[in-house]
Amino acid sequence: MFEIFYEDLVIGQKETFGHYEVTREEVIEFAGKYDPQPFHLDEEAAKDSVFGGLCASGWHTCAMMMRMMVDHMKERGLASLGSPGIDGIEWKRPVFPGDILSAEGETTAKRDSASRPKLGLVKSTYHIKNQRGETVMIMRGNAMVAKRPA
Amino acid sequence: MFEIFYEDLVIGQKETFGHYEVTREEVIEFAGKYDPQPFHLDEEAAKDSVFGGLCASGWHTCAMMMRMMVDHMKERGLASLGSPGIDGIEWKRPVFPGDILSAEGETTAKRDSASRPKLGLVKSTYHIKNQRGETVMIMRGNAMVAKRPA
Repeated sequence: MFEIFYEDLVIGQKETFGHYEVTREEVIEFAGKYDPQPFHLDEEAAKDSVFGGLCASGWHTCAMMMRMMVDHMKERGLASLGSPGIDGIEWKRPVFPGDILSAEGETTAKRDSASRPKLGLVKSTYHIKNQRGETVMIMRGNAMVAKRPA
Repeated sequence: MFEIFYEDLVIGQKETFGHYEVTREEVIEFAGKYDPQPFHLDEEAAKDSVFGGLCASGWHTCAMMMRMMVDHMKERGLASLGSPGIDGIEWKRPVFPGDILSAEGETTAKRDSASRPKLGLVKSTYHIKNQRGETVMIMRGNAMVAKRPA
């Protein structure tokens, strides 16, 4: 199942992937559970907010990004073992119902794990874009990736 | 409705809040939608992972944290207007079904917004803890907070 291992990842390599259609129903469902602020739940309240209209929770955008990333990992057969953390997230523009999201990723750094000899740590930067090509979110993340079995 | 404004926030101020019971059903539901990796979906596969057992997506932990934060903001009447981004997230320990999460937050910095005179930008660090007092996640975030109306 795994085809791409730590050794195969190249710094500077870029990829474009994903297609996520943002619906009003999902925006409100996610916000109702996890981020019940007026600008994520109610059109009228959202008009007066800094966002100008009902928009997705930033954490919902992270979740939608993650779904695109996991689908892409599986398609590639990337030997990803999870993540120790995130170096930064910038929510650049609101994500509105009707938007279609996609991702551009770039591998920016890699190093052997000091504590786990069978894996390496990889840094990547992702730009999440809407259907107009506008960046809605930038995420700088870390992944643990298995080394090729001996 | 708003009672606490930008002017009222004090650097170094700490707060403890939240009570979120993590269920197996919710872990699998979130992961099925947004992070369908084996260690978030399947007990058997999770045993062999670096996490040692079925555990919540890190993004799910962020979402549960956000729910605790929003409930706490509403209780306090904090004039929060959303967030421009996150300075860092560390997933320190797995979050397992049955865990009960809570949060400790500290205001670490504040400054007037250069572009929006009616609000200020506030930095805070949150430690998300489980029922044993172990930190499962650290998040360093930014919030836009309204200034007190003149």
